[in-house]
Amino acid sequence: MSNTNRQITLASRPIGYPKLSDFKLVESPIPTPREGEILVRTLYLSLDPYQRGRMSDAPSYAKPVQIGEVMVGEIVGRVIASHHPDFKEGDIIAGYLGWQEYAVSDGKGIRKVDPTLAPISTALGVLGMPGMTAYFGLLDIGKPQPGETVFVSGAAGAVGSIVGQIAKIKGCRVVGSAGDDTKIDFLIKELGFDAAFNYKTVSDYYEKLKELCPDGIDVYFDNVGGPLTDVVFRWINVKARVVICGQIHDYNLEKPELGPRFLRQLIIKRARVEGFLIFDYADRYEEALRQLAEWLKAGKLKYRETIAEGIENAPQAFISMLKGGNIGKQLVKVSEP
Amino acid sequence: MSNTNRQITLASRPIGYPKLSDFKLVESPIPTPREGEILVRTLYLSLDPYQRGRMSDAPSYAKPVQIGEVMVGEIVGRVIASHHPDFKEGDIIAGYLGWQEYAVSDGKGIRKVDPTLAPISTALGVLGMPGMTAYFGLLDIGKPQPGETVFVSGAAGAVGSIVGQIAKIKGCRVVGSAGDDTKIDFLIKELGFDAAFNYKTVSDYYEKLKELCPDGIDVYFDNVGGPLTDVVFRWINVKARVVICGQIHDYNLEKPELGPRFLRQLIIKRARVEGFLIFDYADRYEEALRQLAEWLKAGKLKYRETIAEGIENAPQAFISMLKGGNIGKQLVKVSEP
Repeated sequence: MSNTNRQITLASRPIGYPKLSDFKLVESPIPTPREGEILVRTLYLSLDPYQRGRMSDAPSYAKPVQIGEVMVGEIVGRVIASHHPDFKEGDIIAGYLGWQEYAVSDGKGIRKVDPTLAPISTALGVLGMPGMTAYFGLLDIGKPQPGETVFVSGAAGAVGSIVGQIAKIKGCRVVGSAGDDTKIDFLIKELGFDAAFNYKTVSDYYEKLKELCPDGIDVYFDNVGGPLTDVVFRWINVKARVVICGQIHDYNLEKPELGPRFLRQLIIKRARVEGFLIFDYADRYEEALRQLAEWLKAGKLKYRETIAEGIENAPQAFISMLKGGNIGKQLVKVSEP
Repeated sequence: MSNTNRQITLASRPIGYPKLSDFKLVESPIPTPREGEILVRTLYLSLDPYQRGRMSDAPSYAKPVQIGEVMVGEIVGRVIASHHPDFKEGDIIAGYLGWQEYAVSDGKGIRKVDPTLAPISTALGVLGMPGMTAYFGLLDIGKPQPGETVFVSGAAGAVGSIVGQIAKIKGCRVVGSAGDDTKIDFLIKELGFDAAFNYKTVSDYYEKLKELCPDGIDVYFDNVGGPLTDVVFRWINVKARVVICGQIHDYNLEKPELGPRFLRQLIIKRARVEGFLIFDYADRYEEALRQLAEWLKAGKLKYRETIAEGIENAPQAFISMLKGGNIGKQLVKVSEP
């Protein structure tokens, strides 16, 4: 092991889609853990749409990454030195330790990963934040009932692909949208979606939704926003639940877009729209992880990963993900497990 | 009593604000009740924004009024002949009997009004649909907690004025908007709102909301929609509840307007937006009316009425109401009680 820690820092705040020059690869010495701390070697880094938000200094639910700071991100890693009573060398852990090869932590917010349960990378996907986001967003806010129609945008992503499968487990008709024909195949043939469409090649969203959701939409799980979401509000059912999980369409706009006002539809349909953040469910993570692991073990949940190699390739992989280049969970393998 | 029933029918579907020529005054013989029916003489006619929706044939939650049909509306009237076991001559009743001087009914959907409880016109206001709309919308959907800030648009209208007062009863800071300085005085001096502003003379809604709601907005009860509502989403608090009751700004547009997309705000604030219709609460009307009557009797609820005279003046009064000409409940006195 060399003595160098390679890190990706924020070089400049992007306008529109991030560019490679908005990131900087810096080298520093591997930090030394003090009493009560652990040193972690990153194995996998999670790339997620929320990280785009942290690159901007617009007001949001969390502080932005400052220029020169290491990019925020969750990782799975191995404890390679421990001066902390709860961790020992060799433990596999997950936590928000950033885009870097090594990190020191005082253990706060760090959870242990059981490597016998499933491949450890799933702690960043189906058995991690994306899986729990799907679980709480769909079940707690969407409240799907057997026989209802659930429509998921961004359906081939880390969250959307789990949402659709949980909705199938709950006995719903499940329809998804994604931006690539390969993803549409994946949704229907591998994940068991009842129908799906490529929003990049469909010109009339309203007609397509009417065709694929002939009984209307009872639950809309939205990862995307923008023009597709505008249209969904015209095809929701009475007492529909719209779960706002992400609005990736918006994150890279150079200036805000306008859309048709839809609040009158909410009266006509007595419908509900609700945004959420997974962090508000922290006291129920265990419940979600237990259920997700059970479904995974029973073969009821499948997952896909798109994996880049090397911390130096994280910025490119991140930009690709924001443009829809991933199927399932986008990861960076930072070192060999 | 003459033998003529004067009725207001829909002459043409309005484009934008209704014009007098969209209505027609027609005369017909007073109908004769058959076995199981009552004949009602209208005393007061209720004018409400939802009636604008029924003049259009755009899809909505209820069928549109057809050209040549009597305009839809709730009335308070006196039973002047009864062949129905549940009603006797002299009973005061409320029901959706339309814009006309006389109507025959089979009793379905007709409720009796107790004239000893309060002036009978209140059965169309504070002790009727507007009062119950305020009650269920604010308490069931808005769920205001003591110390929270409730902002009400269209605050001087039949619903808004009750919403604000119930929110005060519940221990909230209450702020309202209306379109006239006289209304602002009414809200603050008569109804006890903590603050209010005239949206027609305030140019920067965001700065005004920050000034009058310094702790943000926890519950937004929206009767209006449009540009003001666009801005409110920028000033809601974490876990805010937005109750969509009406969107009168939209009802008379000649073509739909665009507005800034705000769904990302719902994620950041983990906020909920919900539309509702009073009809979904039919099995709880009694609860609401009992509570509203109790508050009214205790002097905790005040109400104001704007009353036009004569069925022939209903169209003009309706157009005036749509443009904000009323304070409190807009009524037409159709005959002397």
